[in-house]
Amino acid sequence: MRLLQPEDLEDIAVGAAVLGTGGGGDPYIGKLLARGAIQSHGPVRLVSLEELQDDARVITCGAMGAPTIVLEKVPSGDEMLMALRHYEEVTGDRVTAIMPFEAGGLNSCLPIVLAAQTGLPLVDADGMGRAFPQLEMETFNVYGIAAAPMAMADEKGNLAMVRTRSASRAEFIARGLCIRMGGQASLVNYPMDGATAKRVSVPATMSLAQDIGKVLRRARKEKTDPLSDLIVFLRTTHYGHAERLGSGKVTDIERRVENGWSVGIVTISPFGEGMPYRIRIQNENLVVERGSDILAVVPDLICVLDVDTAEAIPTERLRYGQRVEILGVRVPPIMRSPAALKVFGPAAFGLSAKYQPLGGG
Amino acid sequence: MRLLQPEDLEDIAVGAAVLGTGGGGDPYIGKLLARGAIQSHGPVRLVSLEELQDDARVITCGAMGAPTIVLEKVPSGDEMLMALRHYEEVTGDRVTAIMPFEAGGLNSCLPIVLAAQTGLPLVDADGMGRAFPQLEMETFNVYGIAAAPMAMADEKGNLAMVRTRSASRAEFIARGLCIRMGGQASLVNYPMDGATAKRVSVPATMSLAQDIGKVLRRARKEKTDPLSDLIVFLRTTHYGHAERLGSGKVTDIERRVENGWSVGIVTISPFGEGMPYRIRIQNENLVVERGSDILAVVPDLICVLDVDTAEAIPTERLRYGQRVEILGVRVPPIMRSPAALKVFGPAAFGLSAKYQPLGGG
Repeated sequence: MRLLQPEDLEDIAVGAAVLGTGGGGDPYIGKLLARGAIQSHGPVRLVSLEELQDDARVITCGAMGAPTIVLEKVPSGDEMLMALRHYEEVTGDRVTAIMPFEAGGLNSCLPIVLAAQTGLPLVDADGMGRAFPQLEMETFNVYGIAAAPMAMADEKGNLAMVRTRSASRAEFIARGLCIRMGGQASLVNYPMDGATAKRVSVPATMSLAQDIGKVLRRARKEKTDPLSDLIVFLRTTHYGHAERLGSGKVTDIERRVENGWSVGIVTISPFGEGMPYRIRIQNENLVVERGSDILAVVPDLICVLDVDTAEAIPTERLRYGQRVEILGVRVPPIMRSPAALKVFGPAAFGLSAKYQPLGGG
Repeated sequence: MRLLQPEDLEDIAVGAAVLGTGGGGDPYIGKLLARGAIQSHGPVRLVSLEELQDDARVITCGAMGAPTIVLEKVPSGDEMLMALRHYEEVTGDRVTAIMPFEAGGLNSCLPIVLAAQTGLPLVDADGMGRAFPQLEMETFNVYGIAAAPMAMADEKGNLAMVRTRSASRAEFIARGLCIRMGGQASLVNYPMDGATAKRVSVPATMSLAQDIGKVLRRARKEKTDPLSDLIVFLRTTHYGHAERLGSGKVTDIERRVENGWSVGIVTISPFGEGMPYRIRIQNENLVVERGSDILAVVPDLICVLDVDTAEAIPTERLRYGQRVEILGVRVPPIMRSPAALKVFGPAAFGLSAKYQPLGGG
């Protein structure tokens, strides 16, 4: 167990932006909310999966919606608490630990807010090991945990509980609710006990976000190459492999809100000769293509980073003329099993590309 | 109290189609479901508002969706029971009486199914006095009753509970859920006690539906003019006024599903000379225009009837060439107050027409 203090949040937000792979919502907002919550309620206890009691009542949480909408319809930080209280009232369950349902962006920070508000410990793990655009794209679901009962809330205090027979149906229905709640809402889902959480979660992703932030901060201070440092560091983690996929200038962005997601294509033209890179987006970066070559595809992480600082640029902040590096990161083995690839491999996104783990897997 | 038997259902369905004013879903399906439920579980006790205990726990129920979808995605009859059980489980409330939330079409018959399945009494009243396309268009809402907590279910067993601060927000969110449940779902809402139900409901609308059916059956048997008989009868009820607005042949139908409703315009050309009648539809018939004249507008009932039998033709069954009469019926005083007109008068549908009660009010 260690305490998360306000000074930890800067690194976490920087790292969460990288793990967000373009999505997960802008962590800047999440950082401000988390700082305010810790200042009001005191530091948050971060516990590892190993430290978690087997009989703990864990619930996972986060916001859903289109990141382009989150930019203008900022969460107040209270929606998740309303969703949790509603879940507890309706089910009679008493939650004893909080876990992010995704690692990345806003959704690494909002669970810190909830942990501070409730005084409950925050589990250093999640169900995506990155950000994904859909609620069923969770290792929890891959390894047999039900997404529902699920509680949702918006900033006006509208509340909904959903029970469904499958996680993909929960996603479909919750997305409809989310759209009617203005395109962005907060939720708690995947209730489970501590023993189960140990079996089905991607471990240590909050610490990973913080470590990524530290690496980039040190590189800035010591004037080393931040992307090289980041790649070296990532190869020491359970993700195991990271590499440069390309670099260039953003020369085109198609981006719209469709069915409650930010979708589109970003084109990056190399600084030298050669064909442009095209990245397909559904909240997150799904695939990088160059001509007919697939350079990387989900579930591996595709991160668009500022060429000077290696800080991640979320999809909703991409602009013409930005100079970027494209980083690829292989996901840990728990996310590459045949069962996992069925839930969040290329075919789950309607992509025909075959998944080849970066670095040979 | 009287018992509803299978032989009562024919008249109820015929009358419910008239009160449906084009919407409420095809009562033919509802009649079959209600007959099956009474045959399996025994007759249903129909109680008047006066007979209802003041401390009764009443909940209202019905299906929502686009009637054109209901034609192909027929309710199984079990969705409403799932919604009721879910409501009771989540709230801890124990319901002791069932009331339709609208009078008309399928939604006059589905509450009979639920009453038969549960053995609970059915209250002879509703909150619309007709069919309306939106959940907030209820005398319950007009007179201060909250629409939520509200439970919804679809035929696959997906369940949702919604809590909102206003009935119009409940409608908006539930409509989103309904769309994601395939465009048609069942729900229970507006929980209230018996004393409240007496104050805020439109009385005796189940009996009214049955009486309308009887009048038309007798006219067929005695070979009198069914529409004249119906108008004479309706003038003796608390609705107080009905009149022929026109007649002719259906010569054009524009009809589509939009935002979860069946919407469109039907054109009826008079048998003789003169301009055509145009009826605007949002599930129900909202307004009849002829040139620049408004012949009738919500909340008054606009019913398109077969020219020979005076049986109502729901909007989803309108076809080119049908020979029809257009009947207008004034709503009872509880539905014409300034507060009521705010909730379901012309402006609530985006119509600029001013409401003038048929027959001078």
